[in-house]
Amino acid sequence: MTDKLILLIHCPDREGLVASVTNVIRRFRGNVVDLDQHVDTERGVFFMRVAWNPATDDEAGVEEFQRAFVSEVAAPYAMQWRLQRASRRERMAVFVSKYSHCLYDLLARWESGEWDVEIPLIVSNHRDLEPVARRHGVRFEHVPVTAATKAGAERRQLELLREAGVDLVVLARYMQIVSPEFIAAMDGKVINIHHSFLPAFAGGQPYHAANARGVKIIGATSHYVTADLDAGPIIAQDVVTVSHKDSVEDMVRKGRDLEKIVLARAVYAHLMHQILVYDNRTVVFE
Amino acid sequence: MTDKLILLIHCPDREGLVASVTNVIRRFRGNVVDLDQHVDTERGVFFMRVAWNPATDDEAGVEEFQRAFVSEVAAPYAMQWRLQRASRRERMAVFVSKYSHCLYDLLARWESGEWDVEIPLIVSNHRDLEPVARRHGVRFEHVPVTAATKAGAERRQLELLREAGVDLVVLARYMQIVSPEFIAAMDGKVINIHHSFLPAFAGGQPYHAANARGVKIIGATSHYVTADLDAGPIIAQDVVTVSHKDSVEDMVRKGRDLEKIVLARAVYAHLMHQILVYDNRTVVFE
Amino acid sequence: MTDKLILLIHCPDREGLVASVTNVIRRFRGNVVDLDQHVDTERGVFFMRVAWNPATDDEAGVEEFQRAFVSEVAAPYAMQWRLQRASRRERMAVFVSKYSHCLYDLLARWESGEWDVEIPLIVSNHRDLEPVARRHGVRFEHVPVTAATKAGAERRQLELLREAGVDLVVLARYMQIVSPEFIAAMDGKVINIHHSFLPAFAGGQPYHAANARGVKIIGATSHYVTADLDAGPIIAQDVVTVSHKDSVEDMVRKGRDLEKIVLARAVYAHLMHQILVYDNRTVVFE
Amino acid sequence: MTDKLILLIHCPDREGLVASVTNVIRRFRGNVVDLDQHVDTERGVFFMRVAWNPATDDEAGVEEFQRAFVSEVAAPYAMQWRLQRASRRERMAVFVSKYSHCLYDLLARWESGEWDVEIPLIVSNHRDLEPVARRHGVRFEHVPVTAATKAGAERRQLELLREAGVDLVVLARYMQIVSPEFIAAMDGKVINIHHSFLPAFAGGQPYHAANARGVKIIGATSHYVTADLDAGPIIAQDVVTVSHKDSVEDMVRKGRDLEKIVLARAVYAHLMHQILVYDNRTVVFE
Repeated sequence: MTDKLILLIHCPDREGLVASVTNVIRRFRGNVVDLDQHVDTERGVFFMRVAWNPATDDEAGVEEFQRAFVSEVAAPYAMQWRLQRASRRERMAVFVSKYSHCLYDLLARWESGEWDVEIPLIVSNHRDLEPVARRHGVRFEHVPVTAATKAGAERRQLELLREAGVDLVVLARYMQIVSPEFIAAMDGKVINIHHSFLPAFAGGQPYHAANARGVKIIGATSHYVTADLDAGPIIAQDVVTVSHKDSVEDMVRKGRDLEKIVLARAVYAHLMHQILVYDNRTVVFE
Repeated sequence: MTDKLILLIHCPDREGLVASVTNVIRRFRGNVVDLDQHVDTERGVFFMRVAWNPATDDEAGVEEFQRAFVSEVAAPYAMQWRLQRASRRERMAVFVSKYSHCLYDLLARWESGEWDVEIPLIVSNHRDLEPVARRHGVRFEHVPVTAATKAGAERRQLELLREAGVDLVVLARYMQIVSPEFIAAMDGKVINIHHSFLPAFAGGQPYHAANARGVKIIGATSHYVTADLDAGPIIAQDVVTVSHKDSVEDMVRKGRDLEKIVLARAVYAHLMHQILVYDNRTVVFE
Repeated sequence: MTDKLILLIHCPDREGLVASVTNVIRRFRGNVVDLDQHVDTERGVFFMRVAWNPATDDEAGVEEFQRAFVSEVAAPYAMQWRLQRASRRERMAVFVSKYSHCLYDLLARWESGEWDVEIPLIVSNHRDLEPVARRHGVRFEHVPVTAATKAGAERRQLELLREAGVDLVVLARYMQIVSPEFIAAMDGKVINIHHSFLPAFAGGQPYHAANARGVKIIGATSHYVTADLDAGPIIAQDVVTVSHKDSVEDMVRKGRDLEKIVLARAVYAHLMHQILVYDNRTVVFE
Repeated sequence: MTDKLILLIHCPDREGLVASVTNVIRRFRGNVVDLDQHVDTERGVFFMRVAWNPATDDEAGVEEFQRAFVSEVAAPYAMQWRLQRASRRERMAVFVSKYSHCLYDLLARWESGEWDVEIPLIVSNHRDLEPVARRHGVRFEHVPVTAATKAGAERRQLELLREAGVDLVVLARYMQIVSPEFIAAMDGKVINIHHSFLPAFAGGQPYHAANARGVKIIGATSHYVTADLDAGPIIAQDVVTVSHKDSVEDMVRKGRDLEKIVLARAVYAHLMHQILVYDNRTVVFE
């Protein structure tokens, strides 16, 4: 079987968009294996994800398809689009501080072959998790960050990311704010896990805040990082029940499992090219 | 805006199916507002639901489209299909015994206008819920059922259903087994709520069985009724946590809320023409 | 079997509190059927709920127990406490505006005998739901509320509540803010359902706000009403997943089921004397 | 602060049990920090877990308490009981076959200090996960099992467990049935994770069976192992929604996260001495 191609599209809604796209694929004798489409009627935007096995998956064949698609469909309909090969392994860097549960979980998914991904680099502002990286044979770079050195630290981080050919940065309880410049340099491909059910309890100590407010459910939220802290497009959320019996420590404990699972779901959706972002929201074609 | 048309399709998987269907809609200048497609690769079956506003929704226009669709697409691809008008109100009968929570819930959704449906008939093998039907101004028919009179009772039920022009029968804790003949006469449009997480605890006293087994979660399952009791295609399921503190009575109480919500989700999906059945499983395009 | 007595206690944490309470019950030959205890170690507060069948449940016997309990335990330990008879039916008024789903659900629980409660009164600032009240034979009082007439309207409401001997007011999507004076007059026994996962999306249009924020889960919160809008002690919360497919209307639809179930859980816990309030939080002994 | 003592009790239900136990603790000037009690009224059994800081935690003091408790309370009331020190680290062996996700998860919890436990030994019937054990510095023992060698293999396993001073065996997707003799030798302290929502889909290939049945929710179940396969007392269960889109492979993928979280919850409850077993059911005092 040939490689699978995945096309992600959004554009102003018009008649005949699905037929236009699938007609081109059909003419090139591609076999559609998955098609998801969504119209946000309120915003007048069309979203589509289509995956297919092309008749031929050599570079020339794919480029020929792409040229036809652009001239016949993408350009006329003012589409924003990305074409991906399913076989290409994404390269992911993990940024951490001192909490290890999300890092352990990501490494286990990588090492066990659960995810078809490369993890060439772990970056931290602390040295605490260096032994974890070592044990798994992943390069660990300690880049201390202070208010004064932040700009330089981010330059160093971006240099490391470029060297390692990284596509995606995962902030796995990194506990540092990254600058708009950093995000732009990564083309927005920065995923964070926030340990609350955003927008509730944005900011520093969500479990303390949740405990003080006496909520009966706590959550975790994974989102793309934008300039506005904790306000980026949400990819995945999940919750767990708590009660009066749960102290802040219990919430932290329950929250850890939530954080690692929710972060993993978001990263997986990204790796599978299931996510479109529009108007600070995500369309996740699962 | 014109009426919305909804087309449900399944057929052997082939190349170009989506394009074939959407091309016809496009040629008739229909505007697709919703398209969901699914390929069961294991079984080699293609499923599709497409909803659109046609250029004209008068009877002649819709028939013209239908003829074109059948000759150009449905017949060549050996499709099984249904074409529905969104504006047509389904007519639903509710079968009950003595438990009232599902009946109350269905009536409230109808009366408050939450569901765009007709409920012309309530049938029961007991008289207990007759006052409820009366209060809501719905015809109530008492059809006693014993082993000896079952065949006759079902004939009477089918007569009532025909008279009332019923499309869908909802067994809202009806507690009686319906015969294959009855199901066939209703063309399979019979939805049941089973008060367990099927296939666990099929049969008579699921909460007692769940309590005896010491499970930590109980469920409810709504499904189309088939000849094989509790084994029909599942439409919706949900669960609620229980603990050692929950007696059978507590489970019954918690289960009631679950049952009414799960049944309502299944009936709603049916009313919205979101369900395709194949190989004793459902595809639910939400 | 005798009536069940339920004692709810909170006080500064000290050694021997459980033994002190249970010793008195034991001395009066009560048989404990349920005991829950909780220490909030951070706040240094002890909470307890104990239910028992007394040797005798006549008024004199219960009063004798109460005198002994107060002098030997409650007073020395500076306890706040409430002693309830399980057999006493609470009297509940429902306040509504135009949305009917919570009202229908509460009425069904009452009428079917699921809840052992009285509903002598429905109050609304609109006439829309008067037919619903009529049909169920419950007194309906239309009390219009404007900014100018609010104080007078609340006096009228309190008069109606007093007349009807109401213990608990349930705001079933009442859409009006009640004053601190009203809350005080009801001794804080006012339960509200907010159609969001508080503290996220407090205030007016939570589903619109949730849709704009692009959340993947929506919730509902039931809480005691305090002077600070949407900030009272939370009793129950639950959530349902949403996706990019869900419009505001879909969220409203999904939210309705959530609201009625969460409100019902909170009211049930109140009716069963399972709730203690302390420091704007609830201890719910389920 | 002194060490925390934890007492787990069950016995025929009688009046005054809570007072009897707490009186002894009080007389020894212990400070109760947690007390949970439950009466299974149907079975007539009383369950209790009480945790307290004793006035003195030296060995002599604890033994003196224990003697008083046995003679004054445990013996007269025919109690079955266990007294534990919270500070004592349980020693846990992990049995695996080829699936690694549960093993990785357990090791991460141990290594990060999330759990206060020892993992001195990993046993497997395959060599596949030996490198994982090596990397974490845990002894790995390969004990092949065939129908012919099973008895001998179990003798070898028990020898290894004895040598390593193991208290608890965790079957982390071990894929082998253990004998009643093995379970008895471990005093029933063997926890398994079954990859379905038991009792649905017991046995070999639950995800295939769930897919074939077309369920909308899949689950995982952690339980103590008994002679009757997959029928032991359930400790923890959780579920995740699936749809027609999910192939068996998708269910396996979603199930992995469920399995590791559910197994971890069960093991944690065991380590915290929160579980009582009676009549093939568990009481879990969370």
